[in-house]
Amino acid sequence: MLSAMNSRPAGATARTVDDYRDSIEQLLRPLAARPVESVAVPAALGRKLAADVSSPIDLPVFRNSAMDGYAVRADDVAVAPVTLPLAGVVAAGQPGRAPLPVGAALKVMTGAPIPPGADCVVPVEDTRADGAAVTVERGRAAGEFVREPGTDVRAGALLVPAGVALTPRHIAALAAVGVPTVPVFQPVRAAVITTGDELVPAGRPLRPGQIYNSNGIALAAALAANGATVVSVEHSTDDPAMFRRLLSSATRSADLVFTSGGVSKGDFEVVKDVLAAHGGVFGSVAVQPGGPQGLTVLDGVPVLSFPGNPVSTMVSFEVFARPILRHLSGLPPVRTSEAPLRESVRSPAGRRQFLRGRLTENGVEPFSGAGSHLIAGMAWADVLIDIPAETTELAAGTPVLVHEL
Amino acid sequence: MLSAMNSRPAGATARTVDDYRDSIEQLLRPLAARPVESVAVPAALGRKLAADVSSPIDLPVFRNSAMDGYAVRADDVAVAPVTLPLAGVVAAGQPGRAPLPVGAALKVMTGAPIPPGADCVVPVEDTRADGAAVTVERGRAAGEFVREPGTDVRAGALLVPAGVALTPRHIAALAAVGVPTVPVFQPVRAAVITTGDELVPAGRPLRPGQIYNSNGIALAAALAANGATVVSVEHSTDDPAMFRRLLSSATRSADLVFTSGGVSKGDFEVVKDVLAAHGGVFGSVAVQPGGPQGLTVLDGVPVLSFPGNPVSTMVSFEVFARPILRHLSGLPPVRTSEAPLRESVRSPAGRRQFLRGRLTENGVEPFSGAGSHLIAGMAWADVLIDIPAETTELAAGTPVLVHEL
Repeated sequence: MLSAMNSRPAGATARTVDDYRDSIEQLLRPLAARPVESVAVPAALGRKLAADVSSPIDLPVFRNSAMDGYAVRADDVAVAPVTLPLAGVVAAGQPGRAPLPVGAALKVMTGAPIPPGADCVVPVEDTRADGAAVTVERGRAAGEFVREPGTDVRAGALLVPAGVALTPRHIAALAAVGVPTVPVFQPVRAAVITTGDELVPAGRPLRPGQIYNSNGIALAAALAANGATVVSVEHSTDDPAMFRRLLSSATRSADLVFTSGGVSKGDFEVVKDVLAAHGGVFGSVAVQPGGPQGLTVLDGVPVLSFPGNPVSTMVSFEVFARPILRHLSGLPPVRTSEAPLRESVRSPAGRRQFLRGRLTENGVEPFSGAGSHLIAGMAWADVLIDIPAETTELAAGTPVLVHEL
Repeated sequence: MLSAMNSRPAGATARTVDDYRDSIEQLLRPLAARPVESVAVPAALGRKLAADVSSPIDLPVFRNSAMDGYAVRADDVAVAPVTLPLAGVVAAGQPGRAPLPVGAALKVMTGAPIPPGADCVVPVEDTRADGAAVTVERGRAAGEFVREPGTDVRAGALLVPAGVALTPRHIAALAAVGVPTVPVFQPVRAAVITTGDELVPAGRPLRPGQIYNSNGIALAAALAANGATVVSVEHSTDDPAMFRRLLSSATRSADLVFTSGGVSKGDFEVVKDVLAAHGGVFGSVAVQPGGPQGLTVLDGVPVLSFPGNPVSTMVSFEVFARPILRHLSGLPPVRTSEAPLRESVRSPAGRRQFLRGRLTENGVEPFSGAGSHLIAGMAWADVLIDIPAETTELAAGTPVLVHEL
């Protein structure tokens, strides 16, 4: 699975995006078997259902009225107008066990039980109340405005299938059949370790050569938005001992670890140096931004190593991690669509490029400037434009595949 | 604004969906002016930004290398191959103040400062290191692989505009320029009161005539999924005193109150009876499901009264409340699209119908059975199919507007 990227000569032998993503997805797929816990339905919004849930009851539970009106025998109102004595009123929530006397009408509210003997409901709009009697102005056939038990949901019928992340409409349906708790998977637990001597936290002034550390914050937000629980976000200097210590703590508490930085071809690559010594595979993927990538299984835990540039990190997450994470969390797949380019674009030969873009009514607008360091474009974009590796130039108007961010 | 629906005769004079939704949106629009609080960027995911945020710094902050390689003067490598003495190494995070000696090369890592005097970077792939010297095999023009300060973001440039709900990409950009906190609106606070003697909580056996109370759970989930904070979910019997007590508590703690049930034409309509006495407007909207609706301003707080049937409640929320709530929360609008019907449908004359449906590759499949009480369809559906009021029948293949749930 961890085929040896780094044993190949550099350059033309970079792995393809699809090949590398497949490797990651194979490694991560076992995380679908997370422990199951029982959660009260109101608290289960967004959680991934661990088993099919069937309705414990018929719905409607009892024959009831679909309208405010009068429960009658259809035969008694076959010739209208007809005036019937009023035998009483049944509100929603009342047992409604008293049978309908022959030739009479019982006033019923929407949802109220239909009394034995009645076989249809005349809506109140088609009647005139007259003290102890009601005049029915239009007859109804047997069954009209009567909801029979189990016509919506039968007891035992599948209501929500295993594997979906519960949305408000699922929660509503589960609540309507009185399901109090559901079995859901515990979310995937993720840990993030950023690296680099040059990184400082927000709110401090920068000294020469320093930049702000954004990858920890950004990856934590992206993980949370895609169904994972972030158990830790730590920063390591380029000191291998510190990185090793944080790694070891991360693999103890998380199902999946992300690192940023320390993976390229420089002399001081703490992530690559430490993880390659534990079997990690580091090398080039034919993608821009985000070429240098690493994949390791450490203490049984997958470790995805992204490059340190903030835009490269976020694009790596979108391309390599987000699709499988959404699957593991039961969330719908990342949306893709096709849209015409509003401007021509150039792309490097041999590398699949993910340009930041924005969907408009007239197509997708690429962010001007293809540098991998364009934070401004990341804030502005709402899609990634997927330019195939073999493409070097696309004219305005060419349809392109876009992935929604 | 609260035009008197109930002063018109019943039937043909029901308000249109658009007209009624406009009334609600006018009432709710002032809720956009919620109090502002300052929140740390990592905790601001999903919050609505209350002011434009501009970059406090140039990005890049300093001239730096776009590649691992050698910082040189372009003139010194104009004729390649050429061997230059190695003057040292600059890692990312180092101040990089030492100038480049004339005719020499400085090894630089990606992101490392470009030393004064150097004007381009030769990627490591185009070089051969040779002890104290490096051989450059391909020359580069001035500026190549050098990132100039401010070329990504200029200090003072708008990074994220006011009014958006912050997504991971916004969080990433804010973190990258070192913004520690952002001003965000407090979420809209919503309270829910369900009504009806016949309702019982999940987990208890049903006695004759009883049904499970799902609307409180369902509305709370739908509100949370659309950016609101649910401050309370209460249930009232049909006792007006109890309902009044819960209402009064809800309007003290919430910006917006939802009620379910007690709005139709029966004899016991606690919501309508109590709120109409406080100026509430109750009447028919030409929609199915969800016709009976009520709108009140009580103690300055808008109260939206939905019918009690669980599907009617959820469709009412989708049609009348969700669009404006998403706007108030800075979330993207409800998605709509057009898709061909996979089966013919019938629809009642004079009422705009929202059928539960499911999008497939070949069009939208309507849930079979148009009754408003079809919980099974609600769990199954992922869109509402919008059938215009004047339409009574649509053939399979007809394109229809769908709203994503």
